[in-house]
Amino acid sequence: MIVILTSAATERNREDIVENLESRGYNVHVSVGVEKTIIGIIGIGPEEKAEVADQFEALPFVERCVPISAPYKLVGKAFRPEGTRINVRGIVIGGEKAVMMAGPCTVESEEQLMSAARAVKAAGAHILRGGAYKPSTSPYSFHGHGVEALKMLAAAREETGMPIITEVMDVRDVETVCEYADILQIGTRNSQNYNLLREVGKVQTPVMLKRGMSGKIDEWLQAAEYIASSGNYNIMLCERGIRTFETYTRNTFDINAIPAIKELSHLPIIADPSHGTGKASLVSAVTLAAFAAGADGAIVEVHPNPEKALKDGAQSLTPAAFEDLMKKLAGLLPVVGRTL
Amino acid sequence: MIVILTSAATERNREDIVENLESRGYNVHVSVGVEKTIIGIIGIGPEEKAEVADQFEALPFVERCVPISAPYKLVGKAFRPEGTRINVRGIVIGGEKAVMMAGPCTVESEEQLMSAARAVKAAGAHILRGGAYKPSTSPYSFHGHGVEALKMLAAAREETGMPIITEVMDVRDVETVCEYADILQIGTRNSQNYNLLREVGKVQTPVMLKRGMSGKIDEWLQAAEYIASSGNYNIMLCERGIRTFETYTRNTFDINAIPAIKELSHLPIIADPSHGTGKASLVSAVTLAAFAAGADGAIVEVHPNPEKALKDGAQSLTPAAFEDLMKKLAGLLPVVGRTL
Amino acid sequence: MIVILTSAATERNREDIVENLESRGYNVHVSVGVEKTIIGIIGIGPEEKAEVADQFEALPFVERCVPISAPYKLVGKAFRPEGTRINVRGIVIGGEKAVMMAGPCTVESEEQLMSAARAVKAAGAHILRGGAYKPSTSPYSFHGHGVEALKMLAAAREETGMPIITEVMDVRDVETVCEYADILQIGTRNSQNYNLLREVGKVQTPVMLKRGMSGKIDEWLQAAEYIASSGNYNIMLCERGIRTFETYTRNTFDINAIPAIKELSHLPIIADPSHGTGKASLVSAVTLAAFAAGADGAIVEVHPNPEKALKDGAQSLTPAAFEDLMKKLAGLLPVVGRTL
Amino acid sequence: MIVILTSAATERNREDIVENLESRGYNVHVSVGVEKTIIGIIGIGPEEKAEVADQFEALPFVERCVPISAPYKLVGKAFRPEGTRINVRGIVIGGEKAVMMAGPCTVESEEQLMSAARAVKAAGAHILRGGAYKPSTSPYSFHGHGVEALKMLAAAREETGMPIITEVMDVRDVETVCEYADILQIGTRNSQNYNLLREVGKVQTPVMLKRGMSGKIDEWLQAAEYIASSGNYNIMLCERGIRTFETYTRNTFDINAIPAIKELSHLPIIADPSHGTGKASLVSAVTLAAFAAGADGAIVEVHPNPEKALKDGAQSLTPAAFEDLMKKLAGLLPVVGRTL
Repeated sequence: MIVILTSAATERNREDIVENLESRGYNVHVSVGVEKTIIGIIGIGPEEKAEVADQFEALPFVERCVPISAPYKLVGKAFRPEGTRINVRGIVIGGEKAVMMAGPCTVESEEQLMSAARAVKAAGAHILRGGAYKPSTSPYSFHGHGVEALKMLAAAREETGMPIITEVMDVRDVETVCEYADILQIGTRNSQNYNLLREVGKVQTPVMLKRGMSGKIDEWLQAAEYIASSGNYNIMLCERGIRTFETYTRNTFDINAIPAIKELSHLPIIADPSHGTGKASLVSAVTLAAFAAGADGAIVEVHPNPEKALKDGAQSLTPAAFEDLMKKLAGLLPVVGRTL
Repeated sequence: MIVILTSAATERNREDIVENLESRGYNVHVSVGVEKTIIGIIGIGPEEKAEVADQFEALPFVERCVPISAPYKLVGKAFRPEGTRINVRGIVIGGEKAVMMAGPCTVESEEQLMSAARAVKAAGAHILRGGAYKPSTSPYSFHGHGVEALKMLAAAREETGMPIITEVMDVRDVETVCEYADILQIGTRNSQNYNLLREVGKVQTPVMLKRGMSGKIDEWLQAAEYIASSGNYNIMLCERGIRTFETYTRNTFDINAIPAIKELSHLPIIADPSHGTGKASLVSAVTLAAFAAGADGAIVEVHPNPEKALKDGAQSLTPAAFEDLMKKLAGLLPVVGRTL
Repeated sequence: MIVILTSAATERNREDIVENLESRGYNVHVSVGVEKTIIGIIGIGPEEKAEVADQFEALPFVERCVPISAPYKLVGKAFRPEGTRINVRGIVIGGEKAVMMAGPCTVESEEQLMSAARAVKAAGAHILRGGAYKPSTSPYSFHGHGVEALKMLAAAREETGMPIITEVMDVRDVETVCEYADILQIGTRNSQNYNLLREVGKVQTPVMLKRGMSGKIDEWLQAAEYIASSGNYNIMLCERGIRTFETYTRNTFDINAIPAIKELSHLPIIADPSHGTGKASLVSAVTLAAFAAGADGAIVEVHPNPEKALKDGAQSLTPAAFEDLMKKLAGLLPVVGRTL
Repeated sequence: MIVILTSAATERNREDIVENLESRGYNVHVSVGVEKTIIGIIGIGPEEKAEVADQFEALPFVERCVPISAPYKLVGKAFRPEGTRINVRGIVIGGEKAVMMAGPCTVESEEQLMSAARAVKAAGAHILRGGAYKPSTSPYSFHGHGVEALKMLAAAREETGMPIITEVMDVRDVETVCEYADILQIGTRNSQNYNLLREVGKVQTPVMLKRGMSGKIDEWLQAAEYIASSGNYNIMLCERGIRTFETYTRNTFDINAIPAIKELSHLPIIADPSHGTGKASLVSAVTLAAFAAGADGAIVEVHPNPEKALKDGAQSLTPAAFEDLMKKLAGLLPVVGRTL
């Protein structure tokens, strides 16, 4: 980390800083410039860096602290350069095979879920998605069937053999959801709900961590670091679109984030084009794009009868559109060295 | 609400929609245009609107649904046009007197807290702020002293007579925090943590709800509606800056939101210029601006010794700067029909 | 267009509006709701819509005007559903074949340009790019060699047979640039320089219109409408990344915009992953993604010796990386029904 | 400036960089860290910094360059710490007296302009605003009466004695507009139209430079540096709201920018709450806020009959509302050490 002093800093200020740092055991390099003085701290880890920056930036003669290395460690590329592979009931996420998660946004009924599950299974999906607990902007919207929905998901797994992924929103539900789910999803609104991140870090069920709707890549990886540093290394990241000024689409899918995560982290990266666009008509194109850019998997909303979906219908594919997407995907994957 | 059909919609599609709406008991007005057909739904409340929009936007022949009235009710201006006043141990928030909340970002020690409390009390602050549970981007940063800090806050209240406000981050802590705090703060990262919103809606302790860092005004008011619809009407809103492309400041304080909330809602609005700017040098100017724009109060970080602050020191005022701010404020308030 | 009256609007206000609209010759549908009244205007074109909305939104009893159809016409999908194909010296943009434009960001010297031109030609590029006039944030940066660079580009076309694309920034330069260039580029900073748009609308040289860095899709298409309505229909759009809160990448490439433009407009869409990412390490992945999403072409910075580039070197590919990209692209295109 | 090498950089790479810098005459400090090496360049000016950063960031072993000092010089605070005062026909901008510019968005007719001019003059405005050339998103909107409008403005100046400010959009119009206008306005869409900035830098007529709708403070000051480095130091900056995700208001007025500009630059700062909010109902509150935050002036749209305004009526005050605003302002200014 580099500490940049203001042009008003005195020699005494500089010496105080250096002394303070040396007393903590760091090696320090001082570079006195014409306008400003720069102090480099050698070998400081992410743990101490946050603390030192907080303290030093409060000093009136410190202009700012510039981190040189990443504020995360366990989820950083260097920690496991070969990449993380997560085995979910035989489906490997982060390996050669691309993984497709599909299903309805919300579990509405046994019939709806089973119908969707059969359809996506037939088209080649690997993992079944479905919301039991649903975050909604309005308190008056539908919030999911809870445990009943979890049971329906388990029954669908039973029949189709597909592992299931579902969202957990509340620290008090982690235990229950773990009883049913194969992958825990942390939604965008909880991407900085640190207590929830710590709770899912205490179990070993794999976690899919969605990016906050205004989360910087850096913050997203630190959120993952919360999970890892609590003990659970089975983490996959999910790009689901960020909030921008554009209003034609619900969110702006950040395609740059796919290769960016690949160069910064060893964690698998999953694309969510349903939320990333908010428009069914754009989902197939963006799914193909995400795999072309190197995504390890995708999670797509498919509704057996999207015209009747209770929630987020606007972004759900029909089973026929999903089947068509899977066919195109089978053609595309070999170009990026993968298969379905 | 208006339902706009696509230009490809058939007469049959239109009739289906109308029939569906009429069977739910709504009055419907149909306007067949040259290009598109528009269906107006008369007298639909926020509860049903969210549901109908979800369902209809999933229909391939519906282009979009345009809400005509607000998606919230209990927190809307019309519900209580005279405005909400919240009495916190004799301090009225939302009345003629402007309210100043001040104190350290994080409660670090009894000495630090008491020193800050005395300083802000002497300068005229009404309510003492201080973090016991702190959300931090990095898992390696300091996260607050928890219950110990709550006890120190209570002791500071005992000595100074100032009510206390502190953040609650976890549904499991609501009961404990309520034992000590006079106002519960919901932080920006939890602004859409709906289960937490519901929990603080079940108690009667006043709640200060911060805007999400990428929260639209509309979503912010719906988050407040979660609290109100759970039973707690003692809500104040807090503008704390939004996330934009600008990097010189930590956030962009949305001054427009102050008068906007005043025209949309009856809830008091509090400004947080410390987080809204992230720079101590900008805090006084933006605090004065917020009151000039009509804010009911402000919450400002003051640290007895900002050079030693454990957290967010960069945005904390010194006691002297705070005192100076309070003097200017006393001059400004009468211009907008208020006093300290 | 729909005009929504405020709940305070009187019957008289409503009648005034209706009368005004009918006197202009529009058919009007009035829908009186419990809370608000809605007035639909039938068959109003984009020309009058802007004007009426401006006037009506100024009325105190009008809440807002909601456009139902698009604010552009000539560049809208319906105008030419089969899509626009632009023939540039035999290279067709918008047809079955994907088009690759490549070359250095800035033309620095004859040697640099020729070396880059030969390299990209050998790897299969169709069109040569190179900046003669360069917009730079700092007045102290290099601004391009101007006419000298245009001559070098013409010489490179002579040798390689590749048509050339280059930016025009000033209305006074349009004539000169047209003498040399096969495609005029309008840069992101000039995306709402309406006088420049009109000038390039008066010539027949094809124009590549970059999206503004904070341009909504809607505004981008209206900028294109400026060109078309001035007489030049040879327009291609270029997605070059938008400005967001993310700082890891220079811009956020909006992959959603590719299929979105395809559903809204008949104009070809070109991807610019060099500016869209700002990082050479991400360019290949995002280029492949853009084609997978349906882009008609891409424009990529390639520098014979990126270590010595005068400008934007950080986002330039080496000739070897470009060659590798072209190979992958040849594999990918058939999946989306295209070839190189 | 600091150059941060990647962890893969070799000793040879480091030596090459140092040698290159020393051969250019810079003093260099090298700090070899555990992970990364940092090279500080001493005493490099904004001119060379941009160039060196461009070149070095293209090197594969350079991670990034971190500027330590500002990328502008002539408009930076240190250049003229006492602040710039601009005298416009006896009205001083940047002095003790706050300056109010007011008038219609667009000059529509002599009658409309004179009526507005008399009203704002009577209420205490100092400078008359009015658009002769208007940028509009749609090619089908009204674009202003051009020279005819300039003549009407001059006539209004004649009668009222108020200096006039009006926008110039085209390099070809600079000379003509200078014949009539006392202050040239550069609009948000032209905030990075560098050739236009240079042209207005060649005259001595004062320039009011609006911030780009997605312009960072840093870029805005560099745009001002274009004007100053061309020879015209009579520059005032105008905050007019930035583009964010919020849709309730047209733009987000960046109140932080007012004190931020005051600490970074010596140029006067003017607030434009009409465009900064886009809603007449919010204009007064935000104008007061801007002055409370330290603005040197404001520019406000006032229309004698806003119900009939051709353009931007939604954000225009009535003469009565403007008069009321001026009264409040007279009360507020002394609090921040100013008068009207």
